[in-house]
Amino acid sequence: MSKQLEFWFEFGSTYSYPTAARIERLAHAGGITLIWRPFLLGPIFREQGWEDSPFNIYPTKGAYMWRDMERLCAALDLAFQRPSQFPRNGLLAARIACWFEGEAWLPDFVRSVYDANFVRDQDISNPRVVSSILEEMQLPASEILDAAQDPESKAKLRAQTEQARSLGIFGAPSFLAAGELFWGNDRLEAALDWLQREVA
Amino acid sequence: MSKQLEFWFEFGSTYSYPTAARIERLAHAGGITLIWRPFLLGPIFREQGWEDSPFNIYPTKGAYMWRDMERLCAALDLAFQRPSQFPRNGLLAARIACWFEGEAWLPDFVRSVYDANFVRDQDISNPRVVSSILEEMQLPASEILDAAQDPESKAKLRAQTEQARSLGIFGAPSFLAAGELFWGNDRLEAALDWLQREVA
Repeated sequence: MSKQLEFWFEFGSTYSYPTAARIERLAHAGGITLIWRPFLLGPIFREQGWEDSPFNIYPTKGAYMWRDMERLCAALDLAFQRPSQFPRNGLLAARIACWFEGEAWLPDFVRSVYDANFVRDQDISNPRVVSSILEEMQLPASEILDAAQDPESKAKLRAQTEQARSLGIFGAPSFLAAGELFWGNDRLEAALDWLQREVA
Repeated sequence: MSKQLEFWFEFGSTYSYPTAARIERLAHAGGITLIWRPFLLGPIFREQGWEDSPFNIYPTKGAYMWRDMERLCAALDLAFQRPSQFPRNGLLAARIACWFEGEAWLPDFVRSVYDANFVRDQDISNPRVVSSILEEMQLPASEILDAAQDPESKAKLRAQTEQARSLGIFGAPSFLAAGELFWGNDRLEAALDWLQREVA
């Protein structure tokens, strides 16, 4: 068995942002292959009866989360600005990340979308915002956007979200390490350790 | 300002168990005075519309939590057995811990109640179970139980639970460190670090 860590993330998810910023470095340092797995939390939340983020439904928990994010990003030396809109719809970015999985530019794209949402307060649901991220990366933005909106691409993200659900994923970020599920940015180290121990 | 850490806990809470087992050692090592603050999650959960633990209301999250507890306790070298009943009602034990706060025997009592619930699968809502914990500690069990059931004692725990709510506490364990709120066993180190940094 190879050392593979699956990183399940949602572009609207706050705690996925610090993970996206640091996971590649940690995985590479441990000789671990990282598999980026975008999915949508919306359908999974709706199944639990939530039509909004639980951080909005339960304001006390939400207030805590924003403060916790500030502290966490400060400790990791990461820029952070509470977005003026939350959660933002990451559908378009998730379709791109899902359809173009394995592309060399994917990790940079993912990090740039998180930066747009949680550092620059940009609306990542807006195709122009996503387009300019791709252009800044010297990528053919309109081709990529078109491909991501293709029915096959849409179906791929739906299937990946369905797979998340069948794995027992209920939040983001989540990690799958040698069949073991971990949830939360604060479990990233535990997931990496698990993989190192289980896969010799 | 002295280095004081408030540890807010609920006897029915799974993640409070590993915290109760390790917090005193960590606090003492850092020259920090530990304030034990039992409270009840029930009234706080009910305010959010939950009549049961969210781990029961959301079974996928619950299944994850039990596995996470197994891994977490194994990593901390702590015994753990999933209780046959969850959550157990910690009202009586919380009244004792609240009324007798500051007693030298309190930390041992708290840890013994958690062991009864999460290691020996005993019903901590049963006065006989609580009584035998006190007896094993060579304490006057029936006097303590009577005092804890006094109206003044009941009112004290109600007021403490009300204080938890007013501090923005929505789960257990929680920590208050120099006015800053932290939530979760996995934030204990962050709370201790915060205190060391803020209180010179």
